[in-house]
Amino acid sequence: MSIRAIVWGENVHEAKSRIVADLYPDGMHGCISAALNEDAGISATTAVLQEPEHGLTPERLAETDVLVWWGHAAHGDVADAVVERVCSAVWGGMGVIFLHSAHFAKPFKRLMGTPCNLSWREAGERERIWLTSRQHPIARGLPDHFELEHEEMYGEPFGVPEPMETVFVSWFQGGEVFRSGLTWRRGAGKVFYFRPGHETYPTYFDPNVRQVLRNAVHWAHNPEPRIMSPDAAPNVPVTEALEPLTERGPRLHRDGESGYR
Amino acid sequence: MSIRAIVWGENVHEAKSRIVADLYPDGMHGCISAALNEDAGISATTAVLQEPEHGLTPERLAETDVLVWWGHAAHGDVADAVVERVCSAVWGGMGVIFLHSAHFAKPFKRLMGTPCNLSWREAGERERIWLTSRQHPIARGLPDHFELEHEEMYGEPFGVPEPMETVFVSWFQGGEVFRSGLTWRRGAGKVFYFRPGHETYPTYFDPNVRQVLRNAVHWAHNPEPRIMSPDAAPNVPVTEALEPLTERGPRLHRDGESGYR
Amino acid sequence: MSIRAIVWGENVHEAKSRIVADLYPDGMHGCISAALNEDAGISATTAVLQEPEHGLTPERLAETDVLVWWGHAAHGDVADAVVERVCSAVWGGMGVIFLHSAHFAKPFKRLMGTPCNLSWREAGERERIWLTSRQHPIARGLPDHFELEHEEMYGEPFGVPEPMETVFVSWFQGGEVFRSGLTWRRGAGKVFYFRPGHETYPTYFDPNVRQVLRNAVHWAHNPEPRIMSPDAAPNVPVTEALEPLTERGPRLHRDGESGYR
Amino acid sequence: MSIRAIVWGENVHEAKSRIVADLYPDGMHGCISAALNEDAGISATTAVLQEPEHGLTPERLAETDVLVWWGHAAHGDVADAVVERVCSAVWGGMGVIFLHSAHFAKPFKRLMGTPCNLSWREAGERERIWLTSRQHPIARGLPDHFELEHEEMYGEPFGVPEPMETVFVSWFQGGEVFRSGLTWRRGAGKVFYFRPGHETYPTYFDPNVRQVLRNAVHWAHNPEPRIMSPDAAPNVPVTEALEPLTERGPRLHRDGESGYR
Repeated sequence: MSIRAIVWGENVHEAKSRIVADLYPDGMHGCISAALNEDAGISATTAVLQEPEHGLTPERLAETDVLVWWGHAAHGDVADAVVERVCSAVWGGMGVIFLHSAHFAKPFKRLMGTPCNLSWREAGERERIWLTSRQHPIARGLPDHFELEHEEMYGEPFGVPEPMETVFVSWFQGGEVFRSGLTWRRGAGKVFYFRPGHETYPTYFDPNVRQVLRNAVHWAHNPEPRIMSPDAAPNVPVTEALEPLTERGPRLHRDGESGYR
Repeated sequence: MSIRAIVWGENVHEAKSRIVADLYPDGMHGCISAALNEDAGISATTAVLQEPEHGLTPERLAETDVLVWWGHAAHGDVADAVVERVCSAVWGGMGVIFLHSAHFAKPFKRLMGTPCNLSWREAGERERIWLTSRQHPIARGLPDHFELEHEEMYGEPFGVPEPMETVFVSWFQGGEVFRSGLTWRRGAGKVFYFRPGHETYPTYFDPNVRQVLRNAVHWAHNPEPRIMSPDAAPNVPVTEALEPLTERGPRLHRDGESGYR
Repeated sequence: MSIRAIVWGENVHEAKSRIVADLYPDGMHGCISAALNEDAGISATTAVLQEPEHGLTPERLAETDVLVWWGHAAHGDVADAVVERVCSAVWGGMGVIFLHSAHFAKPFKRLMGTPCNLSWREAGERERIWLTSRQHPIARGLPDHFELEHEEMYGEPFGVPEPMETVFVSWFQGGEVFRSGLTWRRGAGKVFYFRPGHETYPTYFDPNVRQVLRNAVHWAHNPEPRIMSPDAAPNVPVTEALEPLTERGPRLHRDGESGYR
Repeated sequence: MSIRAIVWGENVHEAKSRIVADLYPDGMHGCISAALNEDAGISATTAVLQEPEHGLTPERLAETDVLVWWGHAAHGDVADAVVERVCSAVWGGMGVIFLHSAHFAKPFKRLMGTPCNLSWREAGERERIWLTSRQHPIARGLPDHFELEHEEMYGEPFGVPEPMETVFVSWFQGGEVFRSGLTWRRGAGKVFYFRPGHETYPTYFDPNVRQVLRNAVHWAHNPEPRIMSPDAAPNVPVTEALEPLTERGPRLHRDGESGYR
């Protein structure tokens, strides 16, 4: 069975910027989704900010293996309830991939627990992406480095927690570097951040970038059953202790009472 | 100069539970603060939920090196603005130590990016705390294991991100285990979670526990200057690029414009 | 195509100890190999210390996806050349799983870079293994905890580097704990250590243990091509630099010269 | 009391290369040692390959807090017994800093458990070192980036395990990047790798580099007592179990017998 992916697009620049509309006539989400569907093992659909619940209803997330997120101009318009729902799905096992300016997306900041800030420059300069973790599944089929002739610069320090793995580091023509491919695990869900993808350049048509996206969907997919209550904190009664146990001393909670939150 | 610590106490059980009031006549925060002040290198004060802004004004946090947090019954009463302020101070370099039931404290969940859940049992059972990282600064002067005769049980799986270091793992009489001392870094701030400390037991009078608390304050202290805007995302103009750079291709932002958030 | 696994057995106790011979008439390696072959996706064979080159020729390792290692009494008899060969295969992408007393196996110590020591007691006590990383592929199909009624105790501190992930932590009847399932990556190869498996108990017949072994083989398998020279340090001539570059200043090496090792 | 550091120098190029001898008339080790001694909190001496036991006797290591290692042309001449002695001191708590071409030094490879390889080019090109971990103790007093006008290039992939922290990443004029400041912990000892320092350039006279070296010595210093037998694996007799325990089932070892290694 193929991996069920949603490509979530903010879909704002596509309507407001002629440059972006011309580059991505099917929307950036449409372009990314098409890249994923080139892989027979992935079945990708799209969702956008403007849909009810941003297209991310509980029912739909329950049937999604990996969510890919691109946002920029309208991070603040994403409803907090949807952010919590997305994070809960990740904790329960849904994979998630944040692209480029989604470093400031609400669910990314929520999952990281840090500001996720960086420095930036929009000059259409050359970016060269270096592999730092050979034969990593996210780098499948890629050379040790590849170039994007026109990209926005993102510079260190990048305000994220130490990653589980550093997969890519970028070189920029103007003199900066950036850890452009990083992995984390949050609960049962795998998280990948991938830097390239400024909206005024044709980055998501680049064959190497498209390969990374497909690889990342495979990597992020957790085939185990989704945990439906990933924040449950069950009480274990004394009578059900695994080793013989006699209650001693005072206690605060009465039998059957829930813990505080 | 000594390390400036605040011990933040929820201060609810002390007023409502006779058991807790008798055990901790100066409040749990008072007891913990006294433990810290036994170290000439630490200068500890207290703050409680009931104070204006929970005693954590911007001015006070700016003069705090390490914050120690105990909460349980009233996590939900902590104002979100104070939570963000605390997290921002951590990202800027303030150390923070979360104790026991503070696994569900808002700032801990915010910094971790995960549910921080666990299983639990209140039976006054024996806990034995094992050191897993020899000669770690947080374990200074401690034996390879020590016991608390009466504690609440917390059991795995503990819903936190993989730590930077696992310092302690607990054994429980009833058959469970728990990673009871874990470290992370979030921005410039160091974070330590330490499990023991149920309010109905005299845990914070235990000499080994008090030693851990003092050690952890020293470990969490970052003597570098506090970053005042830890979420800044500065634009680097093309004219100030470190390497000669000519702008190419289209762009979205005008000169001097801020980035989106 | 199924995953090609070798179960390497020291095969010493089987010949010298009646207890072990009776428990494992096909050898411990035979029992483990049979556990793996219950999975149609794995094709497991065995190799033992007593074979020429311990059964681990370059040709055979080149055709092996995952190596499973059990050793105890004869760690010192493993030839250093074979140890380097095994490690080189791991760096190139071969997965490797070290079981129980293989914490002191030469290739494990070589890959970890630490002493890999621990405390121990042979008393046939109860071990309870707790899952610390929900829905981790190595825990596929397992409950949150399972028991082995008779096992050797291993106690913390365990002298290994901080792992990439802690998957299991064990509780022991006599009062100790142990991080009993840990993962690392070394080069392109994935490494898993799994604690249970003392030779005088029927541990490798336990259904949960067998499930862990099969899961771990799947997890450790890197389907990417093996890197044949994982220690190559190529010179990049100035004339082949990716950006225009003019040589400046003095140098030590002449054109075409190899680097020092 | 000041931190006792040894700067270990291979001291080969100084004798064979006029360029190096002119740049570093006191030896590279002498220059680095002088940089450390500018800090009143550090007391640095030197040791070289050509001394008996390479100047690293057990007595001297026992009185050393942090060892700084530079080697290049003669890695193979370092005696294996000294390598094991150095690693054992690290496991017991001695800090260690490996500089530049010491990526191929025997003790570094031994502590990492990987090939530690990279790509390289000797062209005197510009290196710009970016800070990736703000307010990290190793970056104390440094700007967010600094430049070395002439350096050897080292390029990714760098064959080391995922670090505990990435502190610096380098940009090279010729188009490469490199994770040039990485930390690990091995046993009780802290390990730092710092990339710059090719022998034909005056790198160790650079004020920022010297600052990093001093900072790193402070960071690597573990003030806890040295563990003298960091590979001990003690047996815990049944009669000394922390919880009441009755021996059950067969065992392999007799009372008082040591474990296998």
